[in-house]
Amino acid sequence: MKTTAVIMAGGRGERFWPKSRSTLPKQFLSLTSDGKTMMQLTAQRLLPIVDYEDMFVVTNQSYVNLVREQLPQIPPENILAEPTARNTAPCIGFAAAIIGRKYEDAAMLVLPSDHLIKFEEMYIDIMVQAIEVAKDDGNLVTIGITPTYPETGYGYINFGRDEGEDKHRGVYTVKRFVEKPDIGTAKEYLASGQYLWNSGMFVWKLSTIMERFNEFLPDTYKGLLQIGEAFGTPEFKQTLEQCFNLFKSESIDYGIMERASRIYTIPGNFGWDDVGNWLALERINKTNESGNMVQGDVVTIDTQNCIVVGGKKLIATVGLENLVIVDTDDAILICDKDCTQNVKKVIENLKICNRTELI
Amino acid sequence: MKTTAVIMAGGRGERFWPKSRSTLPKQFLSLTSDGKTMMQLTAQRLLPIVDYEDMFVVTNQSYVNLVREQLPQIPPENILAEPTARNTAPCIGFAAAIIGRKYEDAAMLVLPSDHLIKFEEMYIDIMVQAIEVAKDDGNLVTIGITPTYPETGYGYINFGRDEGEDKHRGVYTVKRFVEKPDIGTAKEYLASGQYLWNSGMFVWKLSTIMERFNEFLPDTYKGLLQIGEAFGTPEFKQTLEQCFNLFKSESIDYGIMERASRIYTIPGNFGWDDVGNWLALERINKTNESGNMVQGDVVTIDTQNCIVVGGKKLIATVGLENLVIVDTDDAILICDKDCTQNVKKVIENLKICNRTELI
Repeated sequence: MKTTAVIMAGGRGERFWPKSRSTLPKQFLSLTSDGKTMMQLTAQRLLPIVDYEDMFVVTNQSYVNLVREQLPQIPPENILAEPTARNTAPCIGFAAAIIGRKYEDAAMLVLPSDHLIKFEEMYIDIMVQAIEVAKDDGNLVTIGITPTYPETGYGYINFGRDEGEDKHRGVYTVKRFVEKPDIGTAKEYLASGQYLWNSGMFVWKLSTIMERFNEFLPDTYKGLLQIGEAFGTPEFKQTLEQCFNLFKSESIDYGIMERASRIYTIPGNFGWDDVGNWLALERINKTNESGNMVQGDVVTIDTQNCIVVGGKKLIATVGLENLVIVDTDDAILICDKDCTQNVKKVIENLKICNRTELI
Repeated sequence: MKTTAVIMAGGRGERFWPKSRSTLPKQFLSLTSDGKTMMQLTAQRLLPIVDYEDMFVVTNQSYVNLVREQLPQIPPENILAEPTARNTAPCIGFAAAIIGRKYEDAAMLVLPSDHLIKFEEMYIDIMVQAIEVAKDDGNLVTIGITPTYPETGYGYINFGRDEGEDKHRGVYTVKRFVEKPDIGTAKEYLASGQYLWNSGMFVWKLSTIMERFNEFLPDTYKGLLQIGEAFGTPEFKQTLEQCFNLFKSESIDYGIMERASRIYTIPGNFGWDDVGNWLALERINKTNESGNMVQGDVVTIDTQNCIVVGGKKLIATVGLENLVIVDTDDAILICDKDCTQNVKKVIENLKICNRTELI
């Protein structure tokens, strides 16, 4: 059975402003020293088990050209443009419908396009194991991340081991998905040893997920069948638009994962990072002996624990601590590390002032 | 008797880097909201008592064009280029020699080009009073600034009142000039009520200062006579270079003021500011309700007591306090307010790396 990958690349994250913009979201940025974009890294790390021609990217119409430029190896017909954003269930269903035109059945890896993986070999090993589990009819697999601290920004997976379900070594049964906790709850989760971070990475068979759409989201399922049938015909665009207009906005977590049975999780320990905001840069890149993560043309004097991302000009820092500094062609951000969540206030301000060119 | 002004504009201050550069020192920058440069403001505020044609600017050869551009009203022959920097005594002497070719005698105001005056009418009143005092043969007047805090970066003037010298109301005798004090001494000076800040502004008659050159710096005096004689002849440039090569580097304070008698001071209360570093900007410009001094395209979120000088792009600040942020076309400075003296370390670093284009 072929292994295919669905890379979800429609996100419009604002937390990497001013580098990320509505016209250039995070997945299309290079945030690591190798110069490759998150999108490129996501595709590339799958190559040991997925060919480029079996990679499918679901994105927004306005990002199709970015995907083509950054991943010319992926066949253009595999780059799927959603007419409107309807959250992850229709997004994944759309890809499944198109894959269904190519393969009768296939393993499907469903992956965000803007996460980083440090240990790629381990990642592939986990994916191979997940595919094995997913080969059994009806099994849905979600990749859990072993938590290292009480993060309040992620959903969690409460896992356990069913009687008689221990045939897969290192594979656990999902008891329930839980929403982003408060800090006290997050600490309890961490201490209990029974919770993993929900990474948003899924593995299943095409046939299994289509059955689950039919079971839990039957209206969406009907639309997906229509989309699949119309693919390659002159009516495709119109059918796609009509179906997406009717689709209920629904996440795959709420729509299927939380309602289906036979949900398994495999804990990943492969250096996953969701690169959620500027602070991630000092986790994923080297810091120097002063604790600074510096990119570009930067002179630091008496400066500690700062993240400095230079643009085309020199940045000189004197007597600073705990700041994030980012220069781009038309905007500079200087932000206290403890306030990165308030970068969105800058964007709100720019929206109010109708300065769309900067957003 | 005509009143002339000598504006000293040869300084190469580094403390306004990255706005100031070796090719564009502070006196040629606009740091106030009116858009005028320090140089322009210096000339303009003298207009009630000095005509442009009686203003003389002594500067470095490489700044002559800047002076011409910024002050086209001043006759080109009044812009005097020093072949080499020899501190203030030869600088002032050079101007005196040239003024001597135009007027047999004249009142001479000697002024830095890079200070600010808030109350210009009061400033003119003080200057008029100083000219009155200076009209008496042999009198040298220095303008003292009433200190408002124990500054350690200025020299001080210890003043008093001689018996029989109280004929000039508000005019005091200089007992001695003292160097930049340590903080304890500065506090004593402030508490004593017997010390003023030395502003580097002087008033005297041409004839008086030339006599003092002859008395205390006779070698320089001879050179000045040669320079005056050569002015307007084809030999002027060569004579000037020869004389300046031989001149001892000497400040007017050490060379004459500290050795001459009949030194008077008039305390000025006209909102003087030497604009010594970036922190001056919040003294000389308005700060907003968050204590921020902001120029240009700036969005501040949870930001307090910062100085932000924008360039051509947006600067967004989030969660900052007590910083100086300056953007220019090729360099950005972000500096803790308590570390502005270390901006020079940036310049040292750039010198070591031979990045002269940024200095």
